[in-house]
Amino acid sequence: MSVVRLEESRERIRTELDNTVNFWLKYSHDTVHGGFFTCIGRDGKVYDELKYVWLQGRQVWMYCRLYRTMDRFRKPEILEAAKAGGAFLRKFARVSGSSGQWKCAFCLTRDGKAVKIQRTIFSECFYIMAMDELSRVTDDKDMQLEAEQMMEQIIYWVRVDSSGLGRPQLPGDFPVNSMAVPMMLLCLVQQLTEGRGQEVFQKYRELGSWCVQQILQHIQRDGTAILENVSLDKTELPGCQGRLQNPGHALEAGWFLLQYSTEWGDEELQRTAIDKFMELPYQCGWDKEHGGLFYFLDVDGHCPTQLEWSMKLWWPHCEALIAFLMAYSQTKKPELLDRFFQVFEYTFSHFPDAKNGEWFGYLTQEGKLALDFKGGPFKGFFHVPRCLYMCERILDDLLANKD
Amino acid sequence: MSVVRLEESRERIRTELDNTVNFWLKYSHDTVHGGFFTCIGRDGKVYDELKYVWLQGRQVWMYCRLYRTMDRFRKPEILEAAKAGGAFLRKFARVSGSSGQWKCAFCLTRDGKAVKIQRTIFSECFYIMAMDELSRVTDDKDMQLEAEQMMEQIIYWVRVDSSGLGRPQLPGDFPVNSMAVPMMLLCLVQQLTEGRGQEVFQKYRELGSWCVQQILQHIQRDGTAILENVSLDKTELPGCQGRLQNPGHALEAGWFLLQYSTEWGDEELQRTAIDKFMELPYQCGWDKEHGGLFYFLDVDGHCPTQLEWSMKLWWPHCEALIAFLMAYSQTKKPELLDRFFQVFEYTFSHFPDAKNGEWFGYLTQEGKLALDFKGGPFKGFFHVPRCLYMCERILDDLLANKD
Repeated sequence: MSVVRLEESRERIRTELDNTVNFWLKYSHDTVHGGFFTCIGRDGKVYDELKYVWLQGRQVWMYCRLYRTMDRFRKPEILEAAKAGGAFLRKFARVSGSSGQWKCAFCLTRDGKAVKIQRTIFSECFYIMAMDELSRVTDDKDMQLEAEQMMEQIIYWVRVDSSGLGRPQLPGDFPVNSMAVPMMLLCLVQQLTEGRGQEVFQKYRELGSWCVQQILQHIQRDGTAILENVSLDKTELPGCQGRLQNPGHALEAGWFLLQYSTEWGDEELQRTAIDKFMELPYQCGWDKEHGGLFYFLDVDGHCPTQLEWSMKLWWPHCEALIAFLMAYSQTKKPELLDRFFQVFEYTFSHFPDAKNGEWFGYLTQEGKLALDFKGGPFKGFFHVPRCLYMCERILDDLLANKD
Repeated sequence: MSVVRLEESRERIRTELDNTVNFWLKYSHDTVHGGFFTCIGRDGKVYDELKYVWLQGRQVWMYCRLYRTMDRFRKPEILEAAKAGGAFLRKFARVSGSSGQWKCAFCLTRDGKAVKIQRTIFSECFYIMAMDELSRVTDDKDMQLEAEQMMEQIIYWVRVDSSGLGRPQLPGDFPVNSMAVPMMLLCLVQQLTEGRGQEVFQKYRELGSWCVQQILQHIQRDGTAILENVSLDKTELPGCQGRLQNPGHALEAGWFLLQYSTEWGDEELQRTAIDKFMELPYQCGWDKEHGGLFYFLDVDGHCPTQLEWSMKLWWPHCEALIAFLMAYSQTKKPELLDRFFQVFEYTFSHFPDAKNGEWFGYLTQEGKLALDFKGGPFKGFFHVPRCLYMCERILDDLLANKD
């Protein structure tokens, strides 16, 4: 490996992480009503006061993780911002749903009134991530308990009875194994168990294994493709839904699986994570003409029906950077480092905003800026800093053990 | 006016209409389960067997309208296809909703099982359009009655109590006057009353007037902008939702209002329809750099959060063609004919597929093909043939009275 090149990339990553943290510290805090503004323009100005709950939870999580694990972010202002975000979430995000179960809202007004509830599990998942990570820096056992209680609710929705989510049961709406669900649950298992001791570890052990099996069912077409949605009996679904590929999502699943394989010393899973969940999405998803990863593809080459299918989004590139660098750090195979640097070159030459800081999120297929905001309904303080944080740590390890 | 240019454009429009009808007659009929395939690739192949109900209803309506009002389409195969589509809709589209009211599904499997129900009124609206127009060619009074009964249900949802649509009432989800709702209802009033006699005319008279008033409330910013969503007290809503502009939709509202103004001899409304609902969206929505109409804009120039905001879609151009040609035919103002020809040049040089027939629907801002299918979840046998049909008829009138 080229030590110089790795050191240069670590330097760039470190600087970008510092800039990104500073951007959100400076522009996103609502000191009047609490919580974080999430719709932030290219220059830092708030263009909509709505507060998206996924992004509230993710920002609390990211602040706490940085505070807890990186010395240079162990600063009172970061801890205070995380606590304020957590308090806003606890006060306003939970709303009563149907059938007596409670749900988390998807979106709140500036002062915390629920605007929209999704009939999925994801607002709740990011609430759990926030509460668990915040409980680690505040040592608040109630908060940890609250995270675990909400986890029980989600497990019930996913594995026992989903009717509490509020979707009507329709005869043509066949149950689907959507990759996002086991990925998210696996992420939560890792979040809730890390360093918590044997009791919690045992509590979620079977769930973690189930999530991995559910994710592996997305390897289809005789091992030649990762499909985003499969049937509950592990077969391909008909139509566009069945043929859908989301390369960035598969790459994210890849590094989730790689972490799990390391934890359990499972070499076969490590190979599967790299060969199937990294190499296949890279092969199908990398745009040979313009560079960058497509957002959606159809495994048979039909045109996806998503209008944005050919756009280059920031987050698949973030996930690809983590995936290839983690895979290289575990295997030392040079072709994985080549992939990392290829994605690195595209990412750092296209997404960061040199003028105002942070990254743009949405480019055309050709790499031209398409949407210029830094924060929006689905882009907050999460994919960029998580990627930079993970890559910096992996590079620290690699460079510390470079012989 | 240039008679030669108008004749040339009518010739092109006639040919395109014939080709479009032939495309859908050839590729979209499901002779096994009934109804129409709606996901049809560039070459006519079905790429997904799901049947979208908006598009089923629209196709029945369009077939019947062509059969009823244009001699060259008064063919048994068109009538039979419309009847088969109507039978499929009546058998499968209606599903029981919450609170004992029934709803129409948004999407069905090939054999008619409900896949998804939207919590809006639009599937029901296109069901009504289909049933009313079909009742006109079959002289089926039961079907007409069914259309009027469903209309009562929709009016109740819109004007009395929307809870039957299934959306939870949330404290931050303030009621909105979304332009689509009064536009759609005005369209249905015109559909249900045309030539039906005084009793039906009187029944919907107040509703028509209410719809016009609701649409006019979208003129905001001291008359300088049409905004897609306004509050119930006629003021601008906060944030992205309040600032949203959809130029193609405003142009469509423009020709709906123009039709209404003609019916009622309302010259002030005619002026408003042209000055506000055609000129303003053209001024803000036409891309001076690449040509074509943007899909979404923000009235303050912020970047919209819709990923597809800068794309050029077929349907806003269809609506613009109808709007400007109808406005010209009523006023004979040459600048309106210039607009028509400007949109005509862009549309006919970008959207039709010379090789396989029909039109592409989705281009990049620069006018490059972005999605190549002819039918998809929101593109069926509707905007293209309705535009060509309306423009051909207006041109027939103009050219017949050219002195």
